[in-house]
Amino acid sequence: MVKDDSKTTTQWIQEIEMPAALISYIYRSTQRYFARELIEYHLGWGHFAVLIAVYEMDGPSQDSIASSRGFDKTMVAKTVIRLEEEGLIIRIMDSNDRRIKKLHLTDKGKRILPKLLQIGLELNKSMFADFDETASSQSLKILRKIALNVSKL
Amino acid sequence: MVKDDSKTTTQWIQEIEMPAALISYIYRSTQRYFARELIEYHLGWGHFAVLIAVYEMDGPSQDSIASSRGFDKTMVAKTVIRLEEEGLIIRIMDSNDRRIKKLHLTDKGKRILPKLLQIGLELNKSMFADFDETASSQSLKILRKIALNVSKL
Repeated sequence: MVKDDSKTTTQWIQEIEMPAALISYIYRSTQRYFARELIEYHLGWGHFAVLIAVYEMDGPSQDSIASSRGFDKTMVAKTVIRLEEEGLIIRIMDSNDRRIKKLHLTDKGKRILPKLLQIGLELNKSMFADFDETASSQSLKILRKIALNVSKL
Repeated sequence: MVKDDSKTTTQWIQEIEMPAALISYIYRSTQRYFARELIEYHLGWGHFAVLIAVYEMDGPSQDSIASSRGFDKTMVAKTVIRLEEEGLIIRIMDSNDRRIKKLHLTDKGKRILPKLLQIGLELNKSMFADFDETASSQSLKILRKIALNVSKL
């Protein structure tokens, strides 16, 4: 039980025993970072995440983005519409299955991609600032374990 | 570059090298858990977080909740209004500084608190499922370091 009303975030971080509270704090901080960095591209974090998925998965369907990364399907659907309107991605009918449309980056999407990747890279580097290679790989391992654990929730 | 469209979330978790993406995935999973568990109390995750802060900080001001935990002030303000309307917390004028109102749990708030704490506890246990004591304390340490790193973003 903490009685000190004026305690700072730093103190709170150092004392909190609840991983979920730390995850939530880290997430909120990354959201603030994305909001600031993406403002000039008129994109929010969700647009960023879906654009990166389209790039990494090299022509995914809308549903496969949601299922592979645990995103809400409605969120992905809305985001895809917005990214199409912005001219950053296009839907192309799959040549093997005409019922499926695959998502691809447009030239405009490809042009901003390096900047978006850089924004993501900077964030990932900041998260592990001062970690040596062992600490970084250990930390990734732990985050993966936690992610697998909560995937069963 | 991942070419397999049908890859599952589990595969994605095991291959992803980006801590920010894992944090985001973990956060989204905890949000789904909270949404499910809190529905019978008509509360969302934000209400839960503020109620727990009121309890842990033992009569905090609205601003000190935001500053200690890095919450958005507007989010805390809105949440406090809703929690007051629900009769779960009350604002009491600080006897030392009449300009400040301190937040306290009502009897109704105190009655549901043990259930909320249990919901939080279960989540934290699930996150560290199969971790022994060393792994748990190491993981907390790493999450704290990441939180401190992103607090500077």
